[in-house]
Amino acid sequence: MLNALDKLMLEKVADLHEIPQGAFNIRKNGAGVQRNTTANIDIVTKEDKSGIDVIIKPYTKGESVHIPVIVTEENINDVVYNTFEVGEYSDVLIVAGCGIHNSGHHKSQHDGIHTFFVRKGAKLKYVEKHYGQGDGNGERVLNPKTIIEVEEGAVVELELIQIKGIDQTKRDTEIRLMDNAKLVVTERLLTYQDQEAESNITVELLGVDSSAQIISRSVAQDDSKQTFYFDLIGRNKGRGHIQCDAIIMHNAQVLSTPRISAHHSEAQLVHEAAIGRIESEQLIKLMSLGFSEQEAEDTILNGFLK
Amino acid sequence: MLNALDKLMLEKVADLHEIPQGAFNIRKNGAGVQRNTTANIDIVTKEDKSGIDVIIKPYTKGESVHIPVIVTEENINDVVYNTFEVGEYSDVLIVAGCGIHNSGHHKSQHDGIHTFFVRKGAKLKYVEKHYGQGDGNGERVLNPKTIIEVEEGAVVELELIQIKGIDQTKRDTEIRLMDNAKLVVTERLLTYQDQEAESNITVELLGVDSSAQIISRSVAQDDSKQTFYFDLIGRNKGRGHIQCDAIIMHNAQVLSTPRISAHHSEAQLVHEAAIGRIESEQLIKLMSLGFSEQEAEDTILNGFLK
Repeated sequence: MLNALDKLMLEKVADLHEIPQGAFNIRKNGAGVQRNTTANIDIVTKEDKSGIDVIIKPYTKGESVHIPVIVTEENINDVVYNTFEVGEYSDVLIVAGCGIHNSGHHKSQHDGIHTFFVRKGAKLKYVEKHYGQGDGNGERVLNPKTIIEVEEGAVVELELIQIKGIDQTKRDTEIRLMDNAKLVVTERLLTYQDQEAESNITVELLGVDSSAQIISRSVAQDDSKQTFYFDLIGRNKGRGHIQCDAIIMHNAQVLSTPRISAHHSEAQLVHEAAIGRIESEQLIKLMSLGFSEQEAEDTILNGFLK
Repeated sequence: MLNALDKLMLEKVADLHEIPQGAFNIRKNGAGVQRNTTANIDIVTKEDKSGIDVIIKPYTKGESVHIPVIVTEENINDVVYNTFEVGEYSDVLIVAGCGIHNSGHHKSQHDGIHTFFVRKGAKLKYVEKHYGQGDGNGERVLNPKTIIEVEEGAVVELELIQIKGIDQTKRDTEIRLMDNAKLVVTERLLTYQDQEAESNITVELLGVDSSAQIISRSVAQDDSKQTFYFDLIGRNKGRGHIQCDAIIMHNAQVLSTPRISAHHSEAQLVHEAAIGRIESEQLIKLMSLGFSEQEAEDTILNGFLK
C-alpha cells in the first residue's frame, strides 16, 4: 500500500526506512492505511471524530509509537484528533511527523490536534517533524495543536522540527505541569521563499517545584516571516527558562515575543532571545578553510539548527 | 508661593533643595506657579491646551530645564501637554518629576504627555521621577506619555524612576531613532501594597546604525502588580538590547513581555529578562555581617534599584 514516494516521506518525517518496530499507525491522504499494536500499547480509532486513541499501559518501558501522516495529493484538508494516554511510570517514545508532497496547484493541509495525558511518574519523548515538497504551486499547510498535561513527577521532552517545504504553519502548544513535573522543549524551524510560520507555546508551572526549559532556534531566509509567542507562567514555586535565537537573512522578518509572568514569589523565570545575522567571523573562518561562501553559510546554519 | 510641603515634594522628584539654576517651570495643582527662562532656553505657555513649549536653541551646552509638577490636593485631575524642541548640537538636561501628596479620600491624578524633538547631533538627558505620599486613602495616579523623535546622530538618555507611593501608573514611552541616533533607557520601579504599574516602551530603529539599550529593574512587593511591555523594532541595520530584571516578593505579580522584531537582515536584537526572588545566599551573607533580615533585604533591594 506504500509506494516509493510514501516511503520517502516516511523517512523524512519519522526517520523510518521500513515499517517501524512496535506500535504504529500510518495515515495517508486522510485515512489510516496501516496499524500495529502491542501487548502494552493499544491504538483505537475514535468513533465520534477523525483520529485515534493511543493507550499506553502503566509501567510500559522502552517502547515506541510511530504515527506518521503523509499527504501526497492536492486538495486535501485533513483534520485529525489524536489522544494519548501515557500510563503511570511508563517510559516511551512517540514520533508524529507529517510530510506533504504537493505537486498540484491546490492547497493541501493537515491539522493534527494532539492531546496528551502524561500520568504520574511517566517519561515521554515526543518528536514531531514537518516536511513538505512538490514542484507545483499548491500550498502545503500544517497547523498542529498540542496539549499536554504533565502529572506529578512526570518528565516530557518535546522535539518540534519543521525541516523544510512548509508554506504556512501555525503551531499551538499548551502544556501544564503539576508537582515536580519537568519539561524540555526543543524547537527548530527553517523558512524560506515567502513561507510563514507562527509558533505559540504556553507553559504553566502549576505544581510545586515543576520546571520547564524551552529552546527555540530558527533560520528565516528570503521573504519568509516567523512569529513566536512564548508564554511562561509561574503559579507556584518552580523554575522556567526560555531561550530563543533566530538567524535572519535576506528580506526575512522575525518577531519574537516571550512573555514571562510570575504569580508566585518563588517562581523563577528567565528568558533570553536574540535575532541577528550569521556572524561574519564564522563565515570568514570557514571560507579561509576552503569553503565557498554558500558552503560556509550552509555549514553554519546546519550547526545552528542541528 | 511654595510652602514646606511643596519644597519637600520638589526635593523628592527633582532633587531640588532650592529654586533651580537655569530654566524652570514649577506647576502646582494644575497651574504654573513659577518660571524662569534663559537666553538660550525659552518656555512658552501653550495657547490651545494646558502645557508649555520648551524651546532650546541650537548649540546650547551644559544648561538644564527643571519642570517639576506637584499635586498637594485631593480631587485633582491634571492633564498637561508639554513639547520640547531640543536644538541641533545642543547638550542639555531636562528634569521632569511629579510628586503627589494626597492626604484626602479622593483620587489625585497627573497625566503628562511629553513630546520631544531631539534635533541633529543634540544630546539630551531626561530624568522623570515619580513620588507619592499622604496618609489618606485617596488614590495617587500618574499616567505619563513620552514621545521622542531622535534625529540623525542625536543621543538620548532617559531615566524613568518611580520611587514610591504611586497607587496606579500607566507609562507609555515611544521612541523613534534616525540614522546613527543612540538611546539608553534606564527604568527603576518599586511597587508595594496593592499598587499597580504598567510600563510600555516601544523603540523603533528606523535609521541606519542607530542603537538602543533598555535596562529595566523593578521590585514588586506585597499584593502589587507590575506589567511590562517592551517592543523593540529593527527596521534598518542597527542594534537593540533589552534587559529587564524583577524581584518578586510576597504575593506580588510581575508580567514581562519584551517583543523583539527584526524587519531587516542587519538588525541585531537581543533581550534578556528574569523574574525571581532575592538570592538567599546574599541575604545570609549580609545577616552573617550583623544585619537583621529586614536590613539585609533593604540593602539588597536598594542596591538592585540604585
